[in-house]
Amino acid sequence: MTIITITTDFGLRDGYVGVMKGVIWGINPDVKIVDVTHLISPQDIHQGSIALQRVVPFFPDGTIHLAVVDPGVGTNRRPIAAKIGNHLFVGPDNGLFTRIAQSNSGVMDQTFFVELNQPKFWLREISHVFHGRDIFAPVAAHLSLGIDLQKLGTPIHDPVFLSIPQPELLKEKIIGQVISIDNFGNLATNIFESHLKNYQKQFRVKIKGIDIPDFVETFGAKPSGSLVSLLGTQSDLIIASVNASAQKMLKVSVGEIVEVTFGKL
Amino acid sequence: MTIITITTDFGLRDGYVGVMKGVIWGINPDVKIVDVTHLISPQDIHQGSIALQRVVPFFPDGTIHLAVVDPGVGTNRRPIAAKIGNHLFVGPDNGLFTRIAQSNSGVMDQTFFVELNQPKFWLREISHVFHGRDIFAPVAAHLSLGIDLQKLGTPIHDPVFLSIPQPELLKEKIIGQVISIDNFGNLATNIFESHLKNYQKQFRVKIKGIDIPDFVETFGAKPSGSLVSLLGTQSDLIIASVNASAQKMLKVSVGEIVEVTFGKL
Amino acid sequence: MTIITITTDFGLRDGYVGVMKGVIWGINPDVKIVDVTHLISPQDIHQGSIALQRVVPFFPDGTIHLAVVDPGVGTNRRPIAAKIGNHLFVGPDNGLFTRIAQSNSGVMDQTFFVELNQPKFWLREISHVFHGRDIFAPVAAHLSLGIDLQKLGTPIHDPVFLSIPQPELLKEKIIGQVISIDNFGNLATNIFESHLKNYQKQFRVKIKGIDIPDFVETFGAKPSGSLVSLLGTQSDLIIASVNASAQKMLKVSVGEIVEVTFGKL
Repeated sequence: MTIITITTDFGLRDGYVGVMKGVIWGINPDVKIVDVTHLISPQDIHQGSIALQRVVPFFPDGTIHLAVVDPGVGTNRRPIAAKIGNHLFVGPDNGLFTRIAQSNSGVMDQTFFVELNQPKFWLREISHVFHGRDIFAPVAAHLSLGIDLQKLGTPIHDPVFLSIPQPELLKEKIIGQVISIDNFGNLATNIFESHLKNYQKQFRVKIKGIDIPDFVETFGAKPSGSLVSLLGTQSDLIIASVNASAQKMLKVSVGEIVEVTFGKL
Repeated sequence: MTIITITTDFGLRDGYVGVMKGVIWGINPDVKIVDVTHLISPQDIHQGSIALQRVVPFFPDGTIHLAVVDPGVGTNRRPIAAKIGNHLFVGPDNGLFTRIAQSNSGVMDQTFFVELNQPKFWLREISHVFHGRDIFAPVAAHLSLGIDLQKLGTPIHDPVFLSIPQPELLKEKIIGQVISIDNFGNLATNIFESHLKNYQKQFRVKIKGIDIPDFVETFGAKPSGSLVSLLGTQSDLIIASVNASAQKMLKVSVGEIVEVTFGKL
Repeated sequence: MTIITITTDFGLRDGYVGVMKGVIWGINPDVKIVDVTHLISPQDIHQGSIALQRVVPFFPDGTIHLAVVDPGVGTNRRPIAAKIGNHLFVGPDNGLFTRIAQSNSGVMDQTFFVELNQPKFWLREISHVFHGRDIFAPVAAHLSLGIDLQKLGTPIHDPVFLSIPQPELLKEKIIGQVISIDNFGNLATNIFESHLKNYQKQFRVKIKGIDIPDFVETFGAKPSGSLVSLLGTQSDLIIASVNASAQKMLKVSVGEIVEVTFGKL
């Protein structure tokens, strides 16, 4: 039993994802397929990379992650596949796998990338505009049949990596930023529990000049509408409005600066 | 072959549902998983309860229904599982299962609830904010492997139930309300065929001061744009606009009063 | 292993699609189910027909395509099933299968339609408003078990076909139109590579009085925001804005005229 996950910016309206599943099951009728998300904003490689980082660790070893956020489709950007840790990845060489690769980068031999260049594992006709259907889905299906990564392409050592915004760690404060905003309007930052744990809740969180009054364990600790900070699903510092949307309340976008200042409240 | 259905307010953008499926298949690779909806409005337990009521009867006996609309996650609200009729349920103890339980309440021994308190059936690390991933998905997966409900927790007799709005049954009329509005803009009420069947279509339906001119068998009985009332997918009285949206035409929200007056038209 | 695809205008909020899957797996627990799209605009049979045309060829022979865009549900419109080429179809007789049937119409014996009239293959109770659940899902499930099409209904020779807008092929130009717009805001037309291939890129594309400056191989050939024309996923002429939405930039709807004029640029 193998699983293929699919992450795209294709939306849910046009059947593009259904087509890829048809291609996959035409090659390997036994593989399980699961949608991660198809609502990545068009061309937003950063959000695609974040989605993968959050989801991959909860899938079993050997899962194949097919990801297509691909503004460079049909240009000279390379189609790639990779083994990162105990998972496999297929998609365009544009940085989608940066966060996953960097999570595993402590051990260098845990990542192995190939440029896909064996058309016998693709559909017969390759369009210039839909490699998700024509190249990536069939390659993922062949991987799920147990075909070795090295048969699908040639090793490369220079995959494209995104520049990931890192928090600035100063003596008295951390300057981070909002890196994603979820369906509930919760603001996820690039500041993590590990940055905060020595401070025993002796810190203040500030965004857009507003002090977030309480660092809590969970949403329900304060009345509806309260602004709170807490640790989110990734042990990341998040800012939320209880039973409401912090995004709407604070009118915040991805990239907004978040400051954590240490010291007595 | 067992099925796990999933109903949440997580939306489709963030991969939260994909994570739960990864957790489930990591525990039981053979279970089938099906989405009911992930577009319950955030924290809207009532709509979650209605969705389950509509969907559950059409699944085979033994299906496991995982439902997570969970504003109280991480507080002292209990995580629960239940057997109701011939189906199994997993989720927070906040009333999500009220309608299903009350549908089966004629026979008291048809419902059995446990408070989940056996961490060996959960993920190893439990966050305060995502019990769907950390507790409910793994418990549903273990149920699908045949683990007995009683091994997962301790029986409870006081699950939280929502107060369900009941129609007022008067001598000459019924005063009900809109309880949900679907993708087509059709208004579903808490008035049912059983309330109407003795009246042989000798009744008038009124909402926001407007008389709905026709009670019909189906949408296509009247021209596009006509306001009609009819029996919906649950044998419930619904108000629709043919090939259009009654919600937009009447500017109605859930909770709006609907009156049915008996007597010659 | 058989696959059932599902295409509807039900949206994703109400659980209607989940119900159909419950019905299908109640009859055939082994069939694979895949969503094509449930975001067809309500009652838009044309868009449903286009979605099927794009998706079907990428599924294996023997796949069953369940399609429910059904404004005439419960009226005298017939419920039908069909074999078209090597695929099976189930849905209302309103033209949803027109494009698929016409793609295969070179060989007349490649299409075979039946009117569904054998209630033993349906749910026991049939509503007037949800034949997707009550008739089409159970019929698709029985087809997936290998029940012959002829046992499910009576052959018919007059299925409803939509009138498909054809491009006007003049000596010096083609007058076509936008037939669909995807999630990226790309405009798909009813002009195809076959119409253009003799002209060696010696043509101009015009919409709403605006000359599209470049016919390119793929999106990335021009800077972000550039209007371009190119061949899309169906080898169809499409108009796009690189990394942006041509729909928003040009304020275009389905039906907008697109002209291709031949001759030196």
